[in-house]
Amino acid sequence: MTGSGPGSPLGLHRVLEPAGVLPQAAWRLDASPGLWPDEVRVRVERLNLDAASFRQLREATGGAAPAMRAEVGRIVAERGKMQNPVTGSGGMLTGLVEEAGPGSPLGLAPGDRVATLVSLSLTPLVITGGLAGWDGRSEQVPCRGHAILFGRSIATVLPADLPGPLALAVLDVCGAPALTERVVRQAAGRAGGRPPVVAVLGAAGKSGSLSAVAARRAGAGRVIGVVPSEAEAATLRAAGLTDEVVIADARDPVALAAAVRGAGGPAAVTVVCVDVPGCEGGAVLATADGGTVIFFSMATSFTAAALGAEGAAADVTMLIGNGYVPGHARLALDLVRCEPGVRGLFEARVSESARDGKVEA
Amino acid sequence: MTGSGPGSPLGLHRVLEPAGVLPQAAWRLDASPGLWPDEVRVRVERLNLDAASFRQLREATGGAAPAMRAEVGRIVAERGKMQNPVTGSGGMLTGLVEEAGPGSPLGLAPGDRVATLVSLSLTPLVITGGLAGWDGRSEQVPCRGHAILFGRSIATVLPADLPGPLALAVLDVCGAPALTERVVRQAAGRAGGRPPVVAVLGAAGKSGSLSAVAARRAGAGRVIGVVPSEAEAATLRAAGLTDEVVIADARDPVALAAAVRGAGGPAAVTVVCVDVPGCEGGAVLATADGGTVIFFSMATSFTAAALGAEGAAADVTMLIGNGYVPGHARLALDLVRCEPGVRGLFEARVSESARDGKVEA
Repeated sequence: MTGSGPGSPLGLHRVLEPAGVLPQAAWRLDASPGLWPDEVRVRVERLNLDAASFRQLREATGGAAPAMRAEVGRIVAERGKMQNPVTGSGGMLTGLVEEAGPGSPLGLAPGDRVATLVSLSLTPLVITGGLAGWDGRSEQVPCRGHAILFGRSIATVLPADLPGPLALAVLDVCGAPALTERVVRQAAGRAGGRPPVVAVLGAAGKSGSLSAVAARRAGAGRVIGVVPSEAEAATLRAAGLTDEVVIADARDPVALAAAVRGAGGPAAVTVVCVDVPGCEGGAVLATADGGTVIFFSMATSFTAAALGAEGAAADVTMLIGNGYVPGHARLALDLVRCEPGVRGLFEARVSESARDGKVEA
Repeated sequence: MTGSGPGSPLGLHRVLEPAGVLPQAAWRLDASPGLWPDEVRVRVERLNLDAASFRQLREATGGAAPAMRAEVGRIVAERGKMQNPVTGSGGMLTGLVEEAGPGSPLGLAPGDRVATLVSLSLTPLVITGGLAGWDGRSEQVPCRGHAILFGRSIATVLPADLPGPLALAVLDVCGAPALTERVVRQAAGRAGGRPPVVAVLGAAGKSGSLSAVAARRAGAGRVIGVVPSEAEAATLRAAGLTDEVVIADARDPVALAAAVRGAGGPAAVTVVCVDVPGCEGGAVLATADGGTVIFFSMATSFTAAALGAEGAAADVTMLIGNGYVPGHARLALDLVRCEPGVRGLFEARVSESARDGKVEA
């Protein structure tokens, strides 16, 4: 099918059901390959499932390759997009531009190797070949098929100076350092204030490590990295990304708050980058009155955060981590280029992920 | 049971399972009447279920009084608190202080008639008498039993100059106008900026009408009230709370954004006060780049908000509506005292709710 009129830049013309909602909220999209004039079709090479979705799929299926392949294939066939029905989240993809409609504002040309910076949860997708190349153990999924980009679907040409899997891993979480940078800069700029203390929960992970260095560059007085284990603590210390490294279970609010206090907290800004449920209360308690919590984890419960803060009489600002901040891709890639500690950590995770299926937020 | 040592101000000593979490996140609380030294016991007179929970209970049970009573009774008996297992939310209560522990910092004395300003979802509660006085048609539930307040459980003595059900209805949503006031004041104070346009979704409801007048007082240049029906539009126009009144379905993102634009938008600040799911995309699209969305609805999906904004490449700040802002109770009560339009709207809703079981956010 090809559209005759102009498409909606938000992709509303691809929504099959329910009618009238945005593609992200839709149950099912039209993923047929014909383009509306402002669309772009990408030949998919690789999906990058988000951490919360990958974890859910692994737990629900047991993690064996045939079951993982079947489940992802079933979801995409049924919905016309890779949106995990349980977590609601998706991920991103890389591929080669096959065709760009004459009205596309994205500036892409056939042959460009791109990464999408909008979620798979709203990207029309058709998979062919049954994901035969995926062993089910990594969130990076070799994949054949096609995907559709709308007029407002942000995508970026993959940088020539970084390996593809590394760039994909960085771009997957590029919203986190950008928003952290903005919030910490605002906190640091407040008249009469001391440089803010920033706590990053999950600081040895992908979004966490980038957020930690973004916080430091934005003027944090002290960056406290929180990790769940001695192994991650050793990694984080070796990378030198934070001023303090503490070990605490982010799901244990009292222990977490005590750990952050012991390292120089409470925090003016707390950044939640762990992908397990139940971290809302701890994040609130670790934050100073008048401070800000940024929730990037897709496992965050809106209700738990709202009522948890109220229940603790905590006057904290709580932000839903918006994955889009202008300039986010460039900022994140530059951090990886300029910060050897971050780059080393990403390279280790990418190879580890490829090797044994470990996934980190 | 009476505690021998000091209690935790957050009530951690009342958590039965799972261990170590905050009372809001707990599955089950110890609601026994004996007090720890910093606790207060209240003889309950009335529960005020939150709108999202009441709606869910009505839909799940069919709404008949015996079924509603049985379901609320079952939840409280099982969990030791009135936390709706589906929505995760609770509400608040009013009652008479029965006993205040010697170490309580709340300043309450036996005989004080109080309203709790922390959620029922974290308040230990025992119900006696089977809720016999409740017809199941109003979210205000006549109730006998006792509840426990912790050291940090905010509660307020009910004002003598306002009827009890009116004050309860106002206090139930007092976090919304307080946070709206703060955010709009910040937006209005930005150097070189014009007075901000504010859109309130659900402006004829309780939290919506208070938020609308709070926005105006905080320096909004134009307040746009969005309502779903001609009947609510007439109510809102008669109350005179907003500069513009528009009718739109907040679940239809394109229609909502167009309606707000047509009334002078996009909004610098959008306040979401409707209690139905699926309003995230519309709120984002109705908001200008660089603007802020405040989500007060307990039906908000974290994932839908985060990925919806990203998917639309919308650079908006999204706030989880924290029910606690210092001074929130006084601010909301003062708005009702000073704004006849708001007071009239609340009085009509309170009597309507008592009459025919209608519930509004």
